[in-house]
Amino acid sequence: MSDSAGFDSMWAALEPVGRDPGTGGYRRFAWTREDHLLREWFAGECVARGLDLVEDRAGNQWAWWGDPDAALADGRPAGVVIGSHLDSVPDGGAFDGPLGVVSALAAIDALRRTGHQPQRPVAVVSFGDEEGARFGVACAGSRVITGDLTADRARALADGDGVTLAEALRRAGRDPGRLGPDPETLRRVGVFVELHVEQGRGLAGLDPATSAVAVGSDIWPHGRWRLDFPGQANHAGTTRIEDRHDAMLGYAATVLTARAVATARGCVATVGKVVAEPNGVNAIASHVTGWLDARGADEAAVRAAVADIGAAASSHGATVTEESWTGTTRFDADLVGRLALAAGAGAGTPVLGTGAGHDAGILAAHGIPAGMLFVRNPTGVSHSPEEHAERDDCHAGVAALTAVVADLTGASR
Amino acid sequence: MSDSAGFDSMWAALEPVGRDPGTGGYRRFAWTREDHLLREWFAGECVARGLDLVEDRAGNQWAWWGDPDAALADGRPAGVVIGSHLDSVPDGGAFDGPLGVVSALAAIDALRRTGHQPQRPVAVVSFGDEEGARFGVACAGSRVITGDLTADRARALADGDGVTLAEALRRAGRDPGRLGPDPETLRRVGVFVELHVEQGRGLAGLDPATSAVAVGSDIWPHGRWRLDFPGQANHAGTTRIEDRHDAMLGYAATVLTARAVATARGCVATVGKVVAEPNGVNAIASHVTGWLDARGADEAAVRAAVADIGAAASSHGATVTEESWTGTTRFDADLVGRLALAAGAGAGTPVLGTGAGHDAGILAAHGIPAGMLFVRNPTGVSHSPEEHAERDDCHAGVAALTAVVADLTGASR
Repeated sequence: MSDSAGFDSMWAALEPVGRDPGTGGYRRFAWTREDHLLREWFAGECVARGLDLVEDRAGNQWAWWGDPDAALADGRPAGVVIGSHLDSVPDGGAFDGPLGVVSALAAIDALRRTGHQPQRPVAVVSFGDEEGARFGVACAGSRVITGDLTADRARALADGDGVTLAEALRRAGRDPGRLGPDPETLRRVGVFVELHVEQGRGLAGLDPATSAVAVGSDIWPHGRWRLDFPGQANHAGTTRIEDRHDAMLGYAATVLTARAVATARGCVATVGKVVAEPNGVNAIASHVTGWLDARGADEAAVRAAVADIGAAASSHGATVTEESWTGTTRFDADLVGRLALAAGAGAGTPVLGTGAGHDAGILAAHGIPAGMLFVRNPTGVSHSPEEHAERDDCHAGVAALTAVVADLTGASR
Repeated sequence: MSDSAGFDSMWAALEPVGRDPGTGGYRRFAWTREDHLLREWFAGECVARGLDLVEDRAGNQWAWWGDPDAALADGRPAGVVIGSHLDSVPDGGAFDGPLGVVSALAAIDALRRTGHQPQRPVAVVSFGDEEGARFGVACAGSRVITGDLTADRARALADGDGVTLAEALRRAGRDPGRLGPDPETLRRVGVFVELHVEQGRGLAGLDPATSAVAVGSDIWPHGRWRLDFPGQANHAGTTRIEDRHDAMLGYAATVLTARAVATARGCVATVGKVVAEPNGVNAIASHVTGWLDARGADEAAVRAAVADIGAAASSHGATVTEESWTGTTRFDADLVGRLALAAGAGAGTPVLGTGAGHDAGILAAHGIPAGMLFVRNPTGVSHSPEEHAERDDCHAGVAALTAVVADLTGASR
């Protein structure tokens, strides 16, 4: 089977799993039936390749080719790890996550077909619950093993039906007591390279011939803020305009301000989630909560934008609560250079920052050399059934990832 | 027991039923435990007074003093009916509904204490499911017996847990097959007078000595419209501002337009309910639905305001769907005049329109002479735990209602 055919057949096998027949989007959430199907699929592919599968303390799956505990001459871990995740956002696309896992398996095949003898152990990883669609915390799998998310907090996370992660793990036959930091797993990772579909249009405007794949430079600073707008419950028909205290108005004004400020500051700001109380057609809103997501290449610009938007919200009486904030995560500079050279096969490889969080960012923040490859997304659409990458570009991604692993595990290293 | 003491003891008995200890608001929803407690309380009060209780085909309770099938000399029905409803909106106030039922029972007591011999039969009615809090249709009890709401549609109405009204009736020991138009019940109603707490501040600004009670002239024209804003699901972090199609922006702009237009047109417009898809913190909204409620004293002004708001929504790509529209409902002019004279005891009684729908409006639209009395609301707040009426004003309401029934059932009629 050619490299392309191997990729294509794996892709076809995954395509129906968790797909909504109505929208064409995916619903692949942690520890659900779909998640188990994907885990079994991954295990099967690893067995077929003779890789040794290990599930870590958060349920992330690692499949090793070679001795995972090997060390480099200077004592650093030798493992070269590639992969991504298989779960999705609600009604998500086919590529966000699975493209990195399938490409990693295809890269192993390609290396073997060429007779490459890796001088370092290689692993394919499938991280669990990267999107946080069910339990609300993104990159939960990598955050648990690095300790960013404590075991107690993780176990108490609940889904929309009130089922905790601890209970979901029990139902899945896993021991929730095992959940926690996993230094044994992390100290095997000498370097991690995550291939991912691009989620913007950074490559779409470049020379098509040389821009199927980019190298990631950094993850933008990003955060989430909860904006709580107060109001007074009252009858929508009988309350005079001048007597109203309508929480929806301050909310609406702030949504528009967020867009205007982000445009002016050169970053992005989004209010995608809103909850109104009592949310009745004939009731003036007594409370509206909106969630602001803000990101950008320039940390100072993002902070300034959030300050402006927060001030606008406060002028309507809102309280502003920072739920999370992560500064710029820079990938290992040496690795970025090396990936660019290897992936580009001599040509200049584009280097892009990204506004999305990834497991590679969590590991990088934990001091593990990590980097990313992005495969061109012609429309930039992601987290949507319309998310797409051309098949030729996916194959180019596999070739780039193969070259990167060949380089990192070559005799010269 | 004095008239005041009778009112006060009934009020005290109702106070704890369905009250949320946290907010102090009420949750009295159709065919729930609280509704049954209220029905039993009403039946008990009627039994204690020797009234004959009848439950109609929608479960509304009618308690008769005298022969319900008596006719006037000209053949019209003789029954003089007073009352209101006992259910509430979610987290509603104590007065909206129960004030009318308790006042009606207290008025019966007052008439009897004075030795009044009514020349016409009198009834107290407690309408079911006036607020539509559980099954979504306001005035469901009166709409079913008048045929405004067909039995098939009513039976299929479902609550937030998917329980249909038919199923709820079965669980309550009622036969859902009985649900339907009820001409036998309606043809007993010669006139209906509903006393209700005012839901605005029409009386609050007038001479305190002469404005505890007003007479209703009409129910404002009112309607509901669903506004559906399209967008494109996409990643909140990685999608460039210029590539976004964010449904939340059109929604927010339209909320602000609705307020501005209503102010300019001299009516009220409210967007109190919003549902966003996928409603994720890191997702650009692919769809936002807002519900517009618009009302006002002047029908042309309301229609013009809705046209303006609809045009604004359409300019953001939204579709506008009229879910309901009711033109001005005028109460019987002779009755309004008679109520004003009787309730005011010679002084000029204020006459007010109202922006709220009521069972009295449903019966009036069905050709039954109907009218309303409003008891002063010092803040105008309603549909809220803060809803309030001073006890002295409540007693004044009972006195006005008593005078009205004495007038309507006097020998001169």
